[in-house]
Amino acid sequence: MSWRFNALVLTTILALGFSALATSEPRYVILLIGDGMDDSQITLARNYLKGAQGRLQMDSLPFRSSVQVITMSEQDPSKPVYVADSANTATTLATGQVTSRGRIATTAKTDKDLTTIAELAKAAGYATGIVTTASITDATPAAFISHIGLRGCQNSERMWTATSLDKSRQGCEADLKANGGKGSIAEQIAEGTTDLILGGGNKHFQIMAETTDQTVQSIAEANGYSVIHNTKVLQAMTGEEKILGLFARKTMEVKLRGKDDRKAEHPKRKIKNWLSWSPNTATLPEPMQCEANPDFANTPTLPTMTQAALDLLVKRGGDKGFFLMVESASIDKQAHRRNPCGQIGELEQLDDALKKALTFAKQHANTLILVTADHGHAAQIIPLRYALPKKLSTPDKAKFDKSKADIYSPGKVALLQTADDQIMVINYATNNASSADHTGTQVPLMSNQPLPGMMQQSEIFSIMQKYLQL
Amino acid sequence: MSWRFNALVLTTILALGFSALATSEPRYVILLIGDGMDDSQITLARNYLKGAQGRLQMDSLPFRSSVQVITMSEQDPSKPVYVADSANTATTLATGQVTSRGRIATTAKTDKDLTTIAELAKAAGYATGIVTTASITDATPAAFISHIGLRGCQNSERMWTATSLDKSRQGCEADLKANGGKGSIAEQIAEGTTDLILGGGNKHFQIMAETTDQTVQSIAEANGYSVIHNTKVLQAMTGEEKILGLFARKTMEVKLRGKDDRKAEHPKRKIKNWLSWSPNTATLPEPMQCEANPDFANTPTLPTMTQAALDLLVKRGGDKGFFLMVESASIDKQAHRRNPCGQIGELEQLDDALKKALTFAKQHANTLILVTADHGHAAQIIPLRYALPKKLSTPDKAKFDKSKADIYSPGKVALLQTADDQIMVINYATNNASSADHTGTQVPLMSNQPLPGMMQQSEIFSIMQKYLQL
Ligand SMILES: [Zn+2]
Ligand SMILES: [Zn+2]
Repeated sequence: MSWRFNALVLTTILALGFSALATSEPRYVILLIGDGMDDSQITLARNYLKGAQGRLQMDSLPFRSSVQVITMSEQDPSKPVYVADSANTATTLATGQVTSRGRIATTAKTDKDLTTIAELAKAAGYATGIVTTASITDATPAAFISHIGLRGCQNSERMWTATSLDKSRQGCEADLKANGGKGSIAEQIAEGTTDLILGGGNKHFQIMAETTDQTVQSIAEANGYSVIHNTKVLQAMTGEEKILGLFARKTMEVKLRGKDDRKAEHPKRKIKNWLSWSPNTATLPEPMQCEANPDFANTPTLPTMTQAALDLLVKRGGDKGFFLMVESASIDKQAHRRNPCGQIGELEQLDDALKKALTFAKQHANTLILVTADHGHAAQIIPLRYALPKKLSTPDKAKFDKSKADIYSPGKVALLQTADDQIMVINYATNNASSADHTGTQVPLMSNQPLPGMMQQSEIFSIMQKYLQL
Repeated sequence: MSWRFNALVLTTILALGFSALATSEPRYVILLIGDGMDDSQITLARNYLKGAQGRLQMDSLPFRSSVQVITMSEQDPSKPVYVADSANTATTLATGQVTSRGRIATTAKTDKDLTTIAELAKAAGYATGIVTTASITDATPAAFISHIGLRGCQNSERMWTATSLDKSRQGCEADLKANGGKGSIAEQIAEGTTDLILGGGNKHFQIMAETTDQTVQSIAEANGYSVIHNTKVLQAMTGEEKILGLFARKTMEVKLRGKDDRKAEHPKRKIKNWLSWSPNTATLPEPMQCEANPDFANTPTLPTMTQAALDLLVKRGGDKGFFLMVESASIDKQAHRRNPCGQIGELEQLDDALKKALTFAKQHANTLILVTADHGHAAQIIPLRYALPKKLSTPDKAKFDKSKADIYSPGKVALLQTADDQIMVINYATNNASSADHTGTQVPLMSNQPLPGMMQQSEIFSIMQKYLQL
């Protein structure tokens, strides 16, 4: 058996796709999305949690691709823009179509609904599930199970008030039921067919549905959903009813935070520097470790929700199988806040959810696991070669030249004491505003099944579609 | 043939490595290194050169891995540091061993020589070649063909003066011939066995070799090298002699530069802002395109040098084959200068060199092509949502809210008009000093042959070693 023959076999396997799967066996697709989880965010989390030579669960996946993230201009859909948001990228993952920022499974400019993988799977007889640490009405989950012009239109009250960067696009009036539309994201979810939806965002379901005197939760219940609010009830569910689990008012609490809730901070410059504008010695923030977020205590974890989803969906999917999307949303939300510990804990949650998926795949043939990010994010790992805080004692301290201490990030930095007991410097310097920016980098895709070396984001949809024979 | 069986076959192929190759056929390894070429740098180059949906040559490679870049502390080699330099990473690629920053194929702290893949290949009868756009004495090429404590010890005059960040490490006195060492990097190259070395750095070869009245070039000639200084001579070579091609005094000129040699610039803030420290409107630099660097005109391109190397090495390697390392060095050097056009042109050069390698692989069975980066770099793609320059006219202009124009990068930015005729904003904000910093992200590895999903950088050495049966 020569090497070239093997390569040929492999190429053939990739070309065949998944057509060789026996059609009679159930099929399962588990799509895990780390919001904002690019290579840089993965590396900093690994360094902190496992050390530089450590391995995350996702590092064990045998196949990898890199994903071109494509975003359209709303004004001129023939033109790209180079930094995405979670709405347009989740739309691409869910529908295979590229759209503009802020859009939930609708086309840029023309505002047409795009059919999602969850809808296709449901129509073909699969069970479908959505698990997220965000509000279930937030952009990523919403793009799999609703259709609307603006991500902000999460509930009936926001249909007139949601705005985008583009001031010419205000509200979602066209999507009001009064105007012949499908209503807000929460209402679309309540009236939908998804078998299981777990996450935060309860507040959006306690609002009166448009043109009714009923809460959106009541609408969901009338549509056959068991609406639950704590994990114990979730674990007692048998899979006989559709489940809407709302475990937080808005975004779910995150697992980790910085010591005493510290985030990245500006290096402190001497007063002299403020006046003269000449560079001068700056002092970096004190190093710290992450600590458990006390508010997380009663929050169901992402792996717990994922396991519950797997257990229930495998029942509801029967001989057919299921589609499940699992999102760790606050990798992104904590990166926006320049909170490295927050984003590390949420990446760990995704990695722990992946562990549940991998165990499931061992027990169930024909399981396709895909782990990816929707877009890049702000945090970079930069060198430690600055003026160090006095309290720091490390073997590396000796090698820093105090005369070079005028070199520091113009943004905000955090110094984390990692699993290696070394200091890692995290830099957030995409802008000077309250929320750090996404970046336009290509993002990783990892899988338990072969992938091409490079893909466009829309092809992730195609892989799932083929695997489920939709 | 079921899917699971295929996956099993693939796993087996990966486990077998390359042992199934017929031993009688020549084998070829081509390692292409984009210095600093992480996912972010690749994406910004692709956007500029080909558009957001375009494809680079490297995007066509069917297999991909992601690489953990590991660096040791010099003081305590049991501890990692989180941002590498090209010396320690090239050492890892060349020797399979992790070392500390600044070291050229020597061990951290203990300063022992590490055997390189080029040395192992040569000893086994392969031809060996090094092609770079840097001085051939620069860190990346040097780590494949020399051994010294500090990357700065490029020639005999610098043996006392080279310094590192660590002030306790000065010069390379122990490596002086007078002290029983192998001499400077240039002298080691001149006295070495590498079949072909092409790049810049002529100045280091016009200096008197230690304890002689001969130039280092004369030493090389005495050692059997044809020393050449222009491309025409290179293309007339027949492969009968070893070749040392020195095509520039130091680093070779780069292909592209910004319009009128512009680099990234600070957003301009109103004077008021300087005094009050309140955020205020800032104006971004004018958008631009890249232009040909006029100084590049007579420089041999990286693909030209690569083709010459392939042609000559395949002759010299005969029935055995060859090992060739090709580096595009100034992706890194131009990123340090916050010069996006510079780094884009050098990434294009690497991509064009890859094209030559791929054509070679089509014509020669048993060719392993690996494309990777040594470490991450500063540039990020950030959103365009700032106050725009007056001259800009684009459909996107309408959507920017002037009231939000106080949001801008605290670093330097460049606005590039891409192949899509859209504006891409590149941000350099790792520090406030004259040279932007490397970052600690994991880096891509692409190949024409199967790879595991995740590797440590030292495993790239192992793959090459196995392929060449060393
Ligand atoms: Zn975000
Ligand atoms: Zn560098």
